[in-house]
Amino acid sequence: MNPDSGALLTDLYELTMLQGYWQHDMHETAVFEFFVRKLPTHRNFLISAGLEQAICYLEDLAFLPGEIEWLEQTGRFQPQFLRWLRSFRFTGDVNAMPEGTLFFANEPILQVIAPLAEAQFVETRLINLLNFQTTIASKAARSVLVAPNRLLVDFGLRRAHGAEAGLMAARATFIAGFSGTSTVLAGQRFEIPMYGTMAHSFVQIYPDEVTAFTRFAEANPGNVVLLIDTYDTEAAAEKVVGLAPKLKQRGIDVKAVRIDSGDLGSHARKIREILDDGGLGDVQIFASGNLDEYMLRELIEAGAPISGFGVGTRLDTSSDAPYLDCAYKLQEYGGRPCRKRSEGKTTWPGRKQIYRKFDKSGYIDSDVLTVGDDRQEGEPLLHPVLRGGKRLEGPVPLAASRDRATRQLTSLPERLRALDEATKPFEVTISGALQLLALDMDRHLPNPRSTGHD
Amino acid sequence: MNPDSGALLTDLYELTMLQGYWQHDMHETAVFEFFVRKLPTHRNFLISAGLEQAICYLEDLAFLPGEIEWLEQTGRFQPQFLRWLRSFRFTGDVNAMPEGTLFFANEPILQVIAPLAEAQFVETRLINLLNFQTTIASKAARSVLVAPNRLLVDFGLRRAHGAEAGLMAARATFIAGFSGTSTVLAGQRFEIPMYGTMAHSFVQIYPDEVTAFTRFAEANPGNVVLLIDTYDTEAAAEKVVGLAPKLKQRGIDVKAVRIDSGDLGSHARKIREILDDGGLGDVQIFASGNLDEYMLRELIEAGAPISGFGVGTRLDTSSDAPYLDCAYKLQEYGGRPCRKRSEGKTTWPGRKQIYRKFDKSGYIDSDVLTVGDDRQEGEPLLHPVLRGGKRLEGPVPLAASRDRATRQLTSLPERLRALDEATKPFEVTISGALQLLALDMDRHLPNPRSTGHD
Repeated sequence: MNPDSGALLTDLYELTMLQGYWQHDMHETAVFEFFVRKLPTHRNFLISAGLEQAICYLEDLAFLPGEIEWLEQTGRFQPQFLRWLRSFRFTGDVNAMPEGTLFFANEPILQVIAPLAEAQFVETRLINLLNFQTTIASKAARSVLVAPNRLLVDFGLRRAHGAEAGLMAARATFIAGFSGTSTVLAGQRFEIPMYGTMAHSFVQIYPDEVTAFTRFAEANPGNVVLLIDTYDTEAAAEKVVGLAPKLKQRGIDVKAVRIDSGDLGSHARKIREILDDGGLGDVQIFASGNLDEYMLRELIEAGAPISGFGVGTRLDTSSDAPYLDCAYKLQEYGGRPCRKRSEGKTTWPGRKQIYRKFDKSGYIDSDVLTVGDDRQEGEPLLHPVLRGGKRLEGPVPLAASRDRATRQLTSLPERLRALDEATKPFEVTISGALQLLALDMDRHLPNPRSTGHD
Repeated sequence: MNPDSGALLTDLYELTMLQGYWQHDMHETAVFEFFVRKLPTHRNFLISAGLEQAICYLEDLAFLPGEIEWLEQTGRFQPQFLRWLRSFRFTGDVNAMPEGTLFFANEPILQVIAPLAEAQFVETRLINLLNFQTTIASKAARSVLVAPNRLLVDFGLRRAHGAEAGLMAARATFIAGFSGTSTVLAGQRFEIPMYGTMAHSFVQIYPDEVTAFTRFAEANPGNVVLLIDTYDTEAAAEKVVGLAPKLKQRGIDVKAVRIDSGDLGSHARKIREILDDGGLGDVQIFASGNLDEYMLRELIEAGAPISGFGVGTRLDTSSDAPYLDCAYKLQEYGGRPCRKRSEGKTTWPGRKQIYRKFDKSGYIDSDVLTVGDDRQEGEPLLHPVLRGGKRLEGPVPLAASRDRATRQLTSLPERLRALDEATKPFEVTISGALQLLALDMDRHLPNPRSTGHD
């Protein structure tokens, strides 16, 4: 496979537009913003994630000679344009919400200010990076809210959509407050704590469960979590009761048992009793298998004695809301605000800022979306990240983003914490200045046409 | 970032089990199979995809020295085991359905026969590769079935779950019969035809639409597809009518217009009339925006004059079924068949083959799932792919996999072609030999317990 800069991971139209801009010297400064138009059903808030990967992409953006040659072979581009593309880099500014920030519809989480060609070209990959991690962090936060004080582990790599999805899901779920992941590469790249036990196949290849458990304990004495549902769950729990003292004599502690099928709550209660009666009160129960925040809520509300959960497929695919209705839109060009008014896709114009106010108890009171130079009360949410194409500070440690998300979740008004859709969703306030700008633009745009905001 | 072999893109438990197998010299031959337990709601069939990436993964599997060192630092593994891991490679055999094959629940599409440690270790990434592309090819085939003779283009990169998802979605949709993709990297890597036009921002930065259209046409004279819904769609169509003759004089043909918002069917009809009245009967209408197979069916049944569709977000995330209930399960170890009987997850034991019979009209008549050495009538679906860790043949050209899928879709019984769930779903026949084996195992497995197959 040829070396790959990542620059070709884009939509063809970014390149055809670029050729247009290049040909007509359209290099004035453009402002684009990434925002979510509308929260998915079942989401009362979102958590921003993916900024670090977006920054790396912008800093490293450059076409390799082999990529330029290939573009030439397609016959779609002018040789002069391709020569210009050789030195194409991202030289602009970026303002953004730090990862782990709570946000709502219409609030930009990333603002790009750069010569038009640069600001336009990066659209596809920026959406690709921010949409996914934000989707996953937002989904994961829901499990964190319903299962406080439980161990939550990302188990989703196998059904995540490819390599990057699995890796970045581990990262995004950790930011949202998960304890760790089963994904080894995420442990290596991001220093996320790793968790893992055994598969059913490990139990199956031995003539009986006691042999399988013993072998596993001998090979991994520091992390003995035994999978007990391959044949008969309760019978296997009895075997653990018989085995644990023998392992103990050899200095090996059974840490937990894992169940992965059937009615998890009912099994957990029976197993708890068997373990307790067998003197294994400190052996914990870990559950996995088709879990999501709804199942977690059900198990916890029913008092299931489960101390940790492996949450996989539905988390890493965000199965109930696998994408965001998000956009990366031109808001200003050459100092002139822009506004798109396609039906159902009208945007608030101009470069913006968001100010957040908290009430006396520390809960979010209001967010005001306004034009960039209109100072409002509260804490501004967009912060300088890149200047002249270079990052202002080194990468934020992942633990710091996780702490931020944890703090932010405590500031979430009570009615937005539930899994079900809030009867009174959070409303972002549009400032007078922004409303005036929008009205003014409606008067001057070509072909005015009345369409609602969404 | 450190160099990355991909070997660490796995679940931690694969490594802890490996240590167990290594420690106890469990190196007999194991047979694992990848299959889908149950088709998702809204799916009457699936199309296999992702095999080529699976083969590359198996052929290239090896840990880099830096990865072994990192594993050592985690303190979880024994030095002797890590030394053994240095020369760990995949040396086994693989049988599989070629990409683009129609298949159903319980039919293995990939069978791995290898020393236990190897066959087990590759589980996570094999599922990760096969689950995703098969999900997407199966979703895409539904659009192909409802929109024959239309241009179908994958537009989903931006909301696909990361880089690999976007790239592989372009590949999987092409196998299923899409005409091409907007993803440039997929054009480079897989020679998939690329399609692309312009974004709303291109229209917005010019003072008026006529200027924007003219500039775009000048920069891309060979591919003039004009986006006409930034402000007022019909008014923009009128502008195209005025502009096209002037461009024609300069030797530039307007190929199509694109609409991306509002009621696409109603706009298309009005635009068609405007274009036809303006003498632009050969300018086609291309539509995009929140499309999926259901919307396509609606538009086509209503006779919307749209000749091509860009299908994006819902396709690349397979939003109505973003994952498969799939598994990679141990079926045999040391010549002894294995069977998992966890509740709701019972599997058919042993290494298997599937035989497909066709009726006189060429439609699929029956699939028989049986044990590997039981020869049934019909065409076997699993074919040798790797022997001793090496591929038997070079990569299948993507066009050949696409042709296969196209042919296979014509063999799909009429009742399974509809988008809605068939009232009589396709039933895979379980051979007498396989049923006997399962019964026999139930008699001999530890802790027998009655659970249904699913």
